[in-house]
Amino acid sequence: MRFKISKRRFYQALSTAARAISANSPIPALSGILIEANFDSISLTASDADISIRLKINQSEDKDFEIFDPGSIVIEAKYILEIVRKIDAQEIEVDNVDGSLTLFKGNASEFKINGTKSSDYPDIDFSKPESSFTLASDLFLKMVVQTTFATSDRETRPVLNGVNMRNENGVLECVATDSFRLAKKNLPCSFDGSFNITIPAKSLNEIAKTVDKVNEVEIAVNDKKAQFLLGDTLIQTRLIDGVYPETSRLLPAEYTNEIEMDSRDLLNAIDRASFIKSDGISIIRLQISGQQMIISSKSQEVGSSKEELSNFTYRGEAMEISFSGHYVYEAIRALESAQILIKFSGEMRPFVIFSKEDDSVLQLVLPVRTYN
Amino acid sequence: MRFKISKRRFYQALSTAARAISANSPIPALSGILIEANFDSISLTASDADISIRLKINQSEDKDFEIFDPGSIVIEAKYILEIVRKIDAQEIEVDNVDGSLTLFKGNASEFKINGTKSSDYPDIDFSKPESSFTLASDLFLKMVVQTTFATSDRETRPVLNGVNMRNENGVLECVATDSFRLAKKNLPCSFDGSFNITIPAKSLNEIAKTVDKVNEVEIAVNDKKAQFLLGDTLIQTRLIDGVYPETSRLLPAEYTNEIEMDSRDLLNAIDRASFIKSDGISIIRLQISGQQMIISSKSQEVGSSKEELSNFTYRGEAMEISFSGHYVYEAIRALESAQILIKFSGEMRPFVIFSKEDDSVLQLVLPVRTYN
Repeated sequence: MRFKISKRRFYQALSTAARAISANSPIPALSGILIEANFDSISLTASDADISIRLKINQSEDKDFEIFDPGSIVIEAKYILEIVRKIDAQEIEVDNVDGSLTLFKGNASEFKINGTKSSDYPDIDFSKPESSFTLASDLFLKMVVQTTFATSDRETRPVLNGVNMRNENGVLECVATDSFRLAKKNLPCSFDGSFNITIPAKSLNEIAKTVDKVNEVEIAVNDKKAQFLLGDTLIQTRLIDGVYPETSRLLPAEYTNEIEMDSRDLLNAIDRASFIKSDGISIIRLQISGQQMIISSKSQEVGSSKEELSNFTYRGEAMEISFSGHYVYEAIRALESAQILIKFSGEMRPFVIFSKEDDSVLQLVLPVRTYN
Repeated sequence: MRFKISKRRFYQALSTAARAISANSPIPALSGILIEANFDSISLTASDADISIRLKINQSEDKDFEIFDPGSIVIEAKYILEIVRKIDAQEIEVDNVDGSLTLFKGNASEFKINGTKSSDYPDIDFSKPESSFTLASDLFLKMVVQTTFATSDRETRPVLNGVNMRNENGVLECVATDSFRLAKKNLPCSFDGSFNITIPAKSLNEIAKTVDKVNEVEIAVNDKKAQFLLGDTLIQTRLIDGVYPETSRLLPAEYTNEIEMDSRDLLNAIDRASFIKSDGISIIRLQISGQQMIISSKSQEVGSSKEELSNFTYRGEAMEISFSGHYVYEAIRALESAQILIKFSGEMRPFVIFSKEDDSVLQLVLPVRTYN
């Protein structure tokens, strides 16, 4: 294998591929990036078994590379990224000089790196599932930001580590919950037929970093995997097995009380009050009536906080409710909305936070019982 | 104790004081900041036993504070910093409401924080040593940057964890060594008499962060402590006990070979070559003659690198020498010089790196024996 390639283009491609590399992969070969020089393109493959990336560098008008001998090699991701970044040259020559020893050369500097034969790299099935649909990148990104934070990071119920996506009647319903809160986002979906899959939150967050660079993403799914096609980059992720809980009945059928207010005011007040923690958790009490809104918090060890908020509209009887400051903060922030609506159906019932500007998203939080 | 103070001024002062706070202080009371409201000023004190800061907030023309009741209290540094940062008000009222419970109030938000009585705060002796001298802040900062990195971080020889400063004949000689390399910086010193002290590198680095804000620093020393007076802020540090090794005889009396070159070229080449590591250490080989200069590195596991440098002037016979890439990189960078001179007195003798532009500083590095 021998080729030369623009440093800039090579580094960009390697950085994208390296997203799939996990520091503690169970399979040693997966700490490397598989480089394949074909007759007319260069492919990079990287994987951590959960997520796999295949990236094809095609010849552009700038003639960014030239292939002298096709071939393939696997090089440790951290080595090749550092070499390509540090070589001070416009163009880098890659030459498989002896067995798995590979030369990287640019201007006066050269590196000979011990690689691994590509035959030792695991076979990854990149075949494309039959059916697919397309989403605008900004919608996909928004969905990731508005849901993944609400997934669970515990290993006891793996299915809650992912975002459940189900397609029915042209609507893609994306739900995340850790059983104390729930985030739900609806997207338009042109998929022919229905599916119900759960994608690891970690995969979605990695994919989001790459989606940023394209206008739209094609998503192909079957019951084994989901594939995301972003220009010349293909990312596929495993799905989480198991039945996702039926969350629709968690949403209250009707609401009795409702606050409407500026999201920034409430975020700041919660941020201030959240600083008072008991055992690392901040429980915040909200006391509200038509006249007065008070946010307070208390801890034996640290002390207490109290803040009165003035700009709000309230409909309903006076009430008191306590909740996790962290959960409500994250929920409001994820709405990315200037004005919010918080709807209650009782002091011990889940409450729901809506965006005034966007009815495709909602955040549900369970209250906390306190004794004082 | 009751006073009100400008949020901005209070936060600035608290941030400076908090520099002395160590996350794992052996004395629990030292995780707090001692706040003392006197009749006409507010003092903050913080310490981690190694380094102590006393900061006096004096009334300025802006009348930044008003004291209603003098008094004192100790508040956890992390709490008070977060509260004062988060309160959304121009002015903060501090009121010791009940025993050690202290109120912080700004606009509609208030915090009541459990403090500690100031009688439980350790007595810190801030008396000023009799003799002192003054340094321009930029000179002091440069000394810290050019020496502290070369101190040892091992606990086996505590005296090497500090920078040795000795004053003789109007010259302050600052030396740091970890026994594999040595950094030396001379400063003009108006101190009356001589001293020989070793200041912990950690203290110097903390002091440097505050020195940034003033034009000059007054340094008062005796054989127990060194005090740094920076405007309204007083920082004092303990000294390291023990006799500092006599380092002057480490410097070769004469040199046989000499390289003159651009520091940036060499830094970049060493940076590239250093990426090849054996057991986490990069050993770099330099081969040089009047015609050719080659930087190379090698590791069984990773591979090898080789780079030819072109712009250099060399005086002396052809030679080969190996050294730690990390040490030479740090040494050259610390010189902050465009052109450098490297002087050798044999392939197995320490070599010295000088700045072409500044003869008050030098960096010495021991070569490494290699077998190949």
